[in-house]
Amino acid sequence: MSTPIKIGIIGAGSAQFSLNLVKDICLTDALAGSQGLAGSQVSFMDLNPERLDMVHKLAARYADEMGADLRFERTTDRRACLQDADFVINTAYAKGHEHEWVMRDVAARHGYYYDGVQLGEYYQLRLALDIARDMEAVCPDAWLIQSANPVFNCCTLLTRETSIKVCGLCHGHYGYREIAETIGLDPDRVTWQAPGFNHNIWLTHFIAEGRDAYPRIDEWIATQAEEYWKTHVPEHTHDCQMSRAAVHQYRMYGLFPVGDTFRRVGAGPTVGCTVYRGEWWLHTDFETKKRWFGEPWGGPDTVEGRRWFDRRLRKRIAEMTEAANDPQARLTETFGIQRSDEQIVPIIDGLVNDNEGQYQVNVPNRGTIEGIPDDVVVEVPAIVSKRGIQPIHVGSMPPKVMLECLLPHWLDMERNLLAFKSGDRSILLWNALDSHQTRSYEQALAVTEELLSIEGHEEMNDHFKLPPNW
Amino acid sequence: MSTPIKIGIIGAGSAQFSLNLVKDICLTDALAGSQGLAGSQVSFMDLNPERLDMVHKLAARYADEMGADLRFERTTDRRACLQDADFVINTAYAKGHEHEWVMRDVAARHGYYYDGVQLGEYYQLRLALDIARDMEAVCPDAWLIQSANPVFNCCTLLTRETSIKVCGLCHGHYGYREIAETIGLDPDRVTWQAPGFNHNIWLTHFIAEGRDAYPRIDEWIATQAEEYWKTHVPEHTHDCQMSRAAVHQYRMYGLFPVGDTFRRVGAGPTVGCTVYRGEWWLHTDFETKKRWFGEPWGGPDTVEGRRWFDRRLRKRIAEMTEAANDPQARLTETFGIQRSDEQIVPIIDGLVNDNEGQYQVNVPNRGTIEGIPDDVVVEVPAIVSKRGIQPIHVGSMPPKVMLECLLPHWLDMERNLLAFKSGDRSILLWNALDSHQTRSYEQALAVTEELLSIEGHEEMNDHFKLPPNW
Repeated sequence: MSTPIKIGIIGAGSAQFSLNLVKDICLTDALAGSQGLAGSQVSFMDLNPERLDMVHKLAARYADEMGADLRFERTTDRRACLQDADFVINTAYAKGHEHEWVMRDVAARHGYYYDGVQLGEYYQLRLALDIARDMEAVCPDAWLIQSANPVFNCCTLLTRETSIKVCGLCHGHYGYREIAETIGLDPDRVTWQAPGFNHNIWLTHFIAEGRDAYPRIDEWIATQAEEYWKTHVPEHTHDCQMSRAAVHQYRMYGLFPVGDTFRRVGAGPTVGCTVYRGEWWLHTDFETKKRWFGEPWGGPDTVEGRRWFDRRLRKRIAEMTEAANDPQARLTETFGIQRSDEQIVPIIDGLVNDNEGQYQVNVPNRGTIEGIPDDVVVEVPAIVSKRGIQPIHVGSMPPKVMLECLLPHWLDMERNLLAFKSGDRSILLWNALDSHQTRSYEQALAVTEELLSIEGHEEMNDHFKLPPNW
Repeated sequence: MSTPIKIGIIGAGSAQFSLNLVKDICLTDALAGSQGLAGSQVSFMDLNPERLDMVHKLAARYADEMGADLRFERTTDRRACLQDADFVINTAYAKGHEHEWVMRDVAARHGYYYDGVQLGEYYQLRLALDIARDMEAVCPDAWLIQSANPVFNCCTLLTRETSIKVCGLCHGHYGYREIAETIGLDPDRVTWQAPGFNHNIWLTHFIAEGRDAYPRIDEWIATQAEEYWKTHVPEHTHDCQMSRAAVHQYRMYGLFPVGDTFRRVGAGPTVGCTVYRGEWWLHTDFETKKRWFGEPWGGPDTVEGRRWFDRRLRKRIAEMTEAANDPQARLTETFGIQRSDEQIVPIIDGLVNDNEGQYQVNVPNRGTIEGIPDDVVVEVPAIVSKRGIQPIHVGSMPPKVMLECLLPHWLDMERNLLAFKSGDRSILLWNALDSHQTRSYEQALAVTEELLSIEGHEEMNDHFKLPPNW
């Protein structure tokens, strides 16, 4: 039994995301409304009115088919979406996937392969900060669920700059399931922990039937990995959890990397995580990428992989649109009635209804991982209940993982936040120089300046100024 | 008035260094012996008996000419040198300059320009630790003055691993004098501070006649630098304090770099500071080096610069040998009777005789610079007296200097100490991969393995093993 809550979704035009959320709410009794109690209210906000309209229609029909008593609203006004919200989910991508290609073309002309040089995350950080500032004014007690990248940088920024409670969420940790399946374990019967930073998490514990399962990984590597790498046909571009790249990282650092950890490249030049230079050698060109991440795409971060990803995205949107425009379509058939693997709704249910559970969250460190400052957001297991989100103490990580993986990434994050806050253009230049694909000072300078001058980057170009002594 | 002390010099075969020390002792009343009081005892230790013999002869004759009552001993036995010592000076270079060329040739065959890839500092760290361990047994209350590179890494290692009091010393900070002279200020009439890590120090304060002198630097850059870069004829390879490289760093980081800071490359592949990747773009090839560091050598870290340096070193040794073998030579004429610019003897005088002064030292941080762990050795101004070496509180450094210069260097140091302590070969590989001159994983692997297999590296090659899960 509970009071109905309001959930605001920023960037709700992502139909897959929004529908999954609605589905999970419908499947959660205390949020769906039942036995005469009103269910939750969901406010969809997006700048694209057509996509917003489609999502709104689909959601309303889906909930109706499920018999859930939800209320929906749609708006292009952020503050309206936040008004009276108990939870705000930021899944918005300020510049969009198409814009990445414009940037990649510029970078390529300057000699960079794929996301080999990046410009920081100005628009994503700005958007996240603007949302949190609005929340301080409109719904200061609401939780902000940060699902948009870069989760690490955005959550740390908001922790420091605002009073809003922030929790970052990602899917990467589900990689433990692929590890288990590939080496012949039932993913539902392993226990695991993989703490770190978002996109930089490490399997510290992996236990099957009460025993350490790492020897099973070692055995698989010794006896089956070569054959797997020759024969495995990936189902999608991210299907590379057991690639040579991941095993290589395991050898280098001593713990198995989970999820996006062994990609360590973001979703594109203005968004996502800045390319972390740690494993530049896996990302030098398409042939190298295929060798480390597997045929045919070389993982998600290649021109070929990304085109496939974009095509699939367009196809899904087309399917969604078709379903939305076909009043005969049974949406419960189209979208199913199984819970998604998103943690958002279960976490909301835990916080609101005390339905306690353990989740993988991104929250301020505050002593959870030793050697990381308190105000840096870490990705760790946490107990979620009415009491709040309580990270489970991790303690120390192995020194190699700290010195070669986490602390360099921490410095990258700090530099990007410093650049954002100070508007110091020379830090962007430093980032470009730090790229392992950069061959000269002039090249870094030229690509930085041209990326800043792209159409649509006016605000960013204006924000970043050279220091006075330049 | 004071008790005579014993000073042990490890690596005393460096005649210039040892003679300067003896000269400074002779010029320090309380250490030289006077008015019937016995002077200090100096024990020269080196593995090269000819050089040792030469230094011993020169020192004894020089002191004699100066009328100082010093006692000298020479030994190839380290423990004999340490016995009863009050101060131990480590100036030894385990592998020597000639060995660097063997390593550079190997690196060059793998595609690296000059010190573009390095192997850590195994032999220097080992030697420093062995000396300190011997001191714990033989002279546990003595100070160790660490003058051999890498000062940052060695001093931090000894601080953590031994109970010996360690103070690292370097000459780099005297760069403030070249800055002052070049922009038309009297170096004896400026005040300054330049804290950081050894070879990574930044001019936080620069004051002439009670006023901030930074605007004078800015004016010089605006009006005279270009002309200077065109016309300046360097007296030696290190004469590049006002080079384009230094001004470039000032623009990038907002504070003027002092001394070796803008070189940020060490004395060679097995010793010195590991190449810090920060400014790789200044070090890509000879033409680039000349452009940033000036004609004709491109600074000290080029084949041409190093050859000049080695030639000068050989010439000096020949001159010293000649003087040693010529009983007629007046050594006070040959070597002069002015104090050297070494801080060692004044610091000893301060500690022993309470002759208080302010010096630039490398000591454990313990809160001196904010944001640096307590057990990391920082280079800071300190008051030296009978009370000890007391660093002057620095407080916070600018965030750009922290995030782009000091903290990445801190991580480099930590990785090198971890490699040394753990014997983990994969960290050496990681270092090679981290080099901005590395183009592929295979190249890094090949150069690391070949450098480890060089004659004379047997102990190091044996020490470093691949991790069990490799």
